[in-house]
Amino acid sequence: MRTKEERLADAERPSEEALRLHPYYRGKIQTAAKCAIRDLSDFSIWYTPGVAAPCRAIARDPELVYEYTNRANTVAIVTDGSRVLGLGNIGPEAGMPVMEGKALLFKYLGGVDAVPLCLRAQSPEDIIQTVRLIQPSYGGVNLEDISQPECFRVLDTLRADPAVEIPVFHDDQQGTATVLLAGLLNALKIVQRDIRDVRFAFIGLGAANVATLRLLMASGVEMEQVIATDSRGILHRERDDIRARQADYPDKWRVCQESNPEDRRGGIAEALRDAHVAIAFATPGPDVIQPEWVSAMASDSIVFACSNPVPEIWPWDAKEAGARIVGTGRSDFANQLNNSLGFPAIFRGALDVRARTITDEMCLAAAEEIARYGEELGLDDEHIVPTMDDLDVYPREAVAVGLKAQEQGLARVTLSREEAYRVAAGKIEEARAMISTLMREGAIAPVPEE
Amino acid sequence: MRTKEERLADAERPSEEALRLHPYYRGKIQTAAKCAIRDLSDFSIWYTPGVAAPCRAIARDPELVYEYTNRANTVAIVTDGSRVLGLGNIGPEAGMPVMEGKALLFKYLGGVDAVPLCLRAQSPEDIIQTVRLIQPSYGGVNLEDISQPECFRVLDTLRADPAVEIPVFHDDQQGTATVLLAGLLNALKIVQRDIRDVRFAFIGLGAANVATLRLLMASGVEMEQVIATDSRGILHRERDDIRARQADYPDKWRVCQESNPEDRRGGIAEALRDAHVAIAFATPGPDVIQPEWVSAMASDSIVFACSNPVPEIWPWDAKEAGARIVGTGRSDFANQLNNSLGFPAIFRGALDVRARTITDEMCLAAAEEIARYGEELGLDDEHIVPTMDDLDVYPREAVAVGLKAQEQGLARVTLSREEAYRVAAGKIEEARAMISTLMREGAIAPVPEE
Repeated sequence: MRTKEERLADAERPSEEALRLHPYYRGKIQTAAKCAIRDLSDFSIWYTPGVAAPCRAIARDPELVYEYTNRANTVAIVTDGSRVLGLGNIGPEAGMPVMEGKALLFKYLGGVDAVPLCLRAQSPEDIIQTVRLIQPSYGGVNLEDISQPECFRVLDTLRADPAVEIPVFHDDQQGTATVLLAGLLNALKIVQRDIRDVRFAFIGLGAANVATLRLLMASGVEMEQVIATDSRGILHRERDDIRARQADYPDKWRVCQESNPEDRRGGIAEALRDAHVAIAFATPGPDVIQPEWVSAMASDSIVFACSNPVPEIWPWDAKEAGARIVGTGRSDFANQLNNSLGFPAIFRGALDVRARTITDEMCLAAAEEIARYGEELGLDDEHIVPTMDDLDVYPREAVAVGLKAQEQGLARVTLSREEAYRVAAGKIEEARAMISTLMREGAIAPVPEE
Repeated sequence: MRTKEERLADAERPSEEALRLHPYYRGKIQTAAKCAIRDLSDFSIWYTPGVAAPCRAIARDPELVYEYTNRANTVAIVTDGSRVLGLGNIGPEAGMPVMEGKALLFKYLGGVDAVPLCLRAQSPEDIIQTVRLIQPSYGGVNLEDISQPECFRVLDTLRADPAVEIPVFHDDQQGTATVLLAGLLNALKIVQRDIRDVRFAFIGLGAANVATLRLLMASGVEMEQVIATDSRGILHRERDDIRARQADYPDKWRVCQESNPEDRRGGIAEALRDAHVAIAFATPGPDVIQPEWVSAMASDSIVFACSNPVPEIWPWDAKEAGARIVGTGRSDFANQLNNSLGFPAIFRGALDVRARTITDEMCLAAAEEIARYGEELGLDDEHIVPTMDDLDVYPREAVAVGLKAQEQGLARVTLSREEAYRVAAGKIEEARAMISTLMREGAIAPVPEE
């Protein structure tokens, strides 16, 4: 068994490798041809003069853009860099490595062609207006790493705008909540506890936890099961600071009024006492959550410490303090509740049926399918959700999303379950095969020795 | 020898193939990995948690975004679809096939990663504001297919804006003019005429011809050598319609005042009489220029009929009417003056030295290098410029552009001639090799039989 020191060193290793390898590759994504180029004369088909014919056809029937171009499979990853990972407002340039990494995940896990669009925005309106303008090139928009409360206004405005005809999704809200819920559903199966009997401690109430709470409530959780904290401590009826900003933070104000029925006061320690489940999206740790606070939770406790890049408490510390099941956002620990399990397949499903939007119900369907597949793989304390390696999760989840969109009347394309699976699995397989080919044939250089 | 009917049928063939193959491939570009993914654990380097380290480094020093991401090699192709090819205002969706084709050319010929950004813009300000906002993701912006006079305001505003830190280039102006000038320089060598002794007829005075005229004047041509027409006929001092809009069309108004010293009146026929060189970017033909008008030009006449998808006069008609040298924009005819010879290498050169802008002098250097290389390959009436197959033209042109940027103090990176060539040739070679690999290994399906 590795010592704590060794495990800490392991946890540092990805940063070191990232600093070594980012300048080596000078970018993680690039543009590739999708069509054959037999020789240069083919450009008379792909470009002028031949290209005028498909242009004219689309001018007559704009829906044909989905057949004649890659719009149907392309997603913009839009950010202003105002809240990148747990690093805060580091700006659009510094957000680029994350957005490129996200584009890589979109392709590798979902077969989706994504491109970063990091904006030097001065206001939420700049983001909203840009998304409205760029629609014709994209099948969907993935908002990313935008600070709150601006992110709520951006997402809600765009989803309510009838001029927005493609799905706009905020991964830090909907995507994160989807995967969290999947993990929670299975963790509760392991500890054999009904979601309606659980006492929840929400540590932090930013974009991710507001969305998680909303999705939990759509699954039958009542607000009186919840105690939540933010940077000023537990939310309660007398939190005048939140009352004063209730227009910006309507969800938080509702939590003040309806959660915490015993009117507990204090901070994270008090919120965790006797809780069955802790869901932390607070601030990068370690030691934001102290081991002794975990010890004071109920038995068979579940701790989801999801801050990136460092969880609010190291998993080994939480386990040692008595937590039964621990999840984090990191790919190098067990029970990764990373949103990578969500967004690539959610978009895959939405794009395949040309959904107009991505609803909470579609996210719920995705969470249930992730959980179902995890259960089929076999649950234990260290395996509550499929890992990224359990590749069938992606097409299965895409199917669940696409079918739900059709059921809700939001799809522009009709696919049977079998067709939806074949399309999704085929596109993901093609994406992987392309990357393997490029590596095998040396078009992508091997990772250099240290 | 093929009959006129056969040649007309040949000219229709690219459209038929385009309508067959665009829906087959459903897009001409896609996103590919640029870095190795050995297994999923590598996402702890490319995404969270490892990615936080390069993000932090860029936050401290924003220039590192050029080392740690693909920004340095990425260009946005921005359009509102208001003037696509010769098809007019067909809108941003219908512009997508052209922009994807352009992205393919950027990659194949220049090793540049380009992405289409088709905007549902209501005004030039929407385009200007979007370009300002999206800068952090891109090494440059290529404006495309924007109607006049809006395109002049968009380009001039962005080039003059100190907050715009990357090259903004309007291919329909600067790129087209660059290649036209290259062809003209060599055509004049063939007919042994000095550019200062030539009578020019400019047929049409839109974005391309305004830019061509500007570049010609930078090369020593005087305005009194020029007669120009627009849709209302020859420009002269009493064109009150242009006087009334001189704020929108300052270049055209200047042409009214300074060109056409003999004060000729009339239309295209009158403009062409006795001209040595006709440069037409007017409206798709055929028969916009009549053969008998070409017959009335001076001996050894040069006719550049550059409208797309159909030139103002078919080349065989122009030759039969007496033109000595004929060029068009089409890749299926001799002497293609297509801007594909320009923009990929101009951006390659500008990106490699991280130029802040692309000046007229950089375009002039590109034109001279294209012409020089064409001369080395051997000039005759049917070969005035290199073809797209003469692959060395691209790195040579990139070097010329990069060195000129350094000379003008506009480069953020210093490269010797040899280094510049090695970098440019290497990136172009890599792009071709990638596409060949994808085709050879079946990741891009072969073109299906009809």
